[in-house]
Amino acid sequence: MVGDSPLLVSFDLVGIFVFAISGGLVAVRKQLDVFGVLVLAGATGLGGGFLRDVLIDATPPAALDDWRYLLVPVAAGLVTFVFHPTIGRMERVVSVFDAAGLGLFCVTGALKALDYGLSPVPAALMGMLTGIGGGILRDLLAGRVPVIFSSELYATPALAGAAWAVLAHEQGWTLAVIAIPGVLLCFGWRVGAILRNWRAPIARGPASV
Amino acid sequence: MVGDSPLLVSFDLVGIFVFAISGGLVAVRKQLDVFGVLVLAGATGLGGGFLRDVLIDATPPAALDDWRYLLVPVAAGLVTFVFHPTIGRMERVVSVFDAAGLGLFCVTGALKALDYGLSPVPAALMGMLTGIGGGILRDLLAGRVPVIFSSELYATPALAGAAWAVLAHEQGWTLAVIAIPGVLLCFGWRVGAILRNWRAPIARGPASV
Amino acid sequence: MVGDSPLLVSFDLVGIFVFAISGGLVAVRKQLDVFGVLVLAGATGLGGGFLRDVLIDATPPAALDDWRYLLVPVAAGLVTFVFHPTIGRMERVVSVFDAAGLGLFCVTGALKALDYGLSPVPAALMGMLTGIGGGILRDLLAGRVPVIFSSELYATPALAGAAWAVLAHEQGWTLAVIAIPGVLLCFGWRVGAILRNWRAPIARGPASV
Repeated sequence: MVGDSPLLVSFDLVGIFVFAISGGLVAVRKQLDVFGVLVLAGATGLGGGFLRDVLIDATPPAALDDWRYLLVPVAAGLVTFVFHPTIGRMERVVSVFDAAGLGLFCVTGALKALDYGLSPVPAALMGMLTGIGGGILRDLLAGRVPVIFSSELYATPALAGAAWAVLAHEQGWTLAVIAIPGVLLCFGWRVGAILRNWRAPIARGPASV
Repeated sequence: MVGDSPLLVSFDLVGIFVFAISGGLVAVRKQLDVFGVLVLAGATGLGGGFLRDVLIDATPPAALDDWRYLLVPVAAGLVTFVFHPTIGRMERVVSVFDAAGLGLFCVTGALKALDYGLSPVPAALMGMLTGIGGGILRDLLAGRVPVIFSSELYATPALAGAAWAVLAHEQGWTLAVIAIPGVLLCFGWRVGAILRNWRAPIARGPASV
Repeated sequence: MVGDSPLLVSFDLVGIFVFAISGGLVAVRKQLDVFGVLVLAGATGLGGGFLRDVLIDATPPAALDDWRYLLVPVAAGLVTFVFHPTIGRMERVVSVFDAAGLGLFCVTGALKALDYGLSPVPAALMGMLTGIGGGILRDLLAGRVPVIFSSELYATPALAGAAWAVLAHEQGWTLAVIAIPGVLLCFGWRVGAILRNWRAPIARGPASV
């Protein structure tokens, strides 16, 4: 989806792979069949980018015309299907990779939105959506309230990384200076949230019905 | 999303604000964190317009490039987060404002669809979708069956208001004559449905499994 | 959505009708009101095609500008609303018609994606999505995990039929040779799956939490 830089494409594919594994794990735990595992893996890995592409009018999504973007989630789904007991026990490790994927998606998503002419604020929001959209779609398809709404901080780091990318892009800095601090900002914040259980506040007072 | 008429834009923003509050209330009651409140507020306020814009090929949605359309749902979400006990007790009042938002969205949604070249019947359907789409998205994200399916009449007034707007537009009447009766038709019908508990019929006979 | 061939259009409308009935039945069983029945009927009958059209940038969906595509799901919804006890008892028959609809949708969906310039693999995926998308949307709106994930083979026959259509199209064969074997391949496989309870494998081993 990013196009030209081989480094960004590699990182993007790694992000899709790890997101797809998280989707596959949810499907296995829901006792879905192998097709359900592949669909949830694909939706989780590619969903955020598809949502962004539909909203910024970058259709058909580039992922539909690049076999690597289709092969990676299928591979991740099959790996999860076969090795799910092992992967399930490594969930802490998976969530660190997931944080890396989040970091990259929020940056590449924001840059692509800028490329398509969006202003800074909506571009940052599209970066956040690219990062969190796949997980939301996964949870909808699996019939549960999206976990990002009630787990440790997830969207805030994605928005921060995307905002960095947008601001740095506005300065005309090089791709490395735009991307690397943005990815690290999101990744570090998210890993900190996992390790230290940082959470966003919930509303005080009785939740009237 | 409506563009030029300051009156319509003001009404549109009020509609988004009230819709966003209804989304925020659902999120607070689900014990979601502040981010979940903001996302549900934004999805409820802007979701119907986004769905319409994606279907009529008006992407990127105009709301993404107008800071007021982004600020209003954020403000509504924060207000709900802080004052939810008070707002929750005023739900009857909120639902009257919600009816006003529904009235405006169905009219502006239908007019925008006509602007983009749709025929009368699909334009009226897009107007209805603009009105009801945000609430459907809110309920999907909150993990419940959309309440519009089983509450008092909601979509029927929206379709009626949108149909009026389309018919009046076909006559070449002025914006005021197109918009005001359409908004009032939907608003009045919906408020009547709330006050008098008008409901659509459900199927008779045993629901075979 | 298919355009010129009267045969394909007829088949397409039959497919929409049967899909819409399956949506209407779910809505009646959920005790939704008549509007909910119509919305679920419409979403099930048209949803797959809408998803495809949004992703391949064929918006606004052709169905929005052809009254037959709007009338058919409304008719199916009303028929289901009135005659649901009878239709519910004929569910086996309905599922055979549903298999026919699946067969046609996967073929026409793939051909439309090729028309819009997609490569073979994504075009086959879009064909599958056209077939399964309506049922997924129906289940999301009805608040249940999509049944295609855990029932007899459903997506696999759709992918097979779509793949045939893409391969035959690449050979430059005539429409009849492209379409008829593709439809029959999907239809026969799906009917076999229903009759003999063919299922995709689920993951072995304990589903770790």
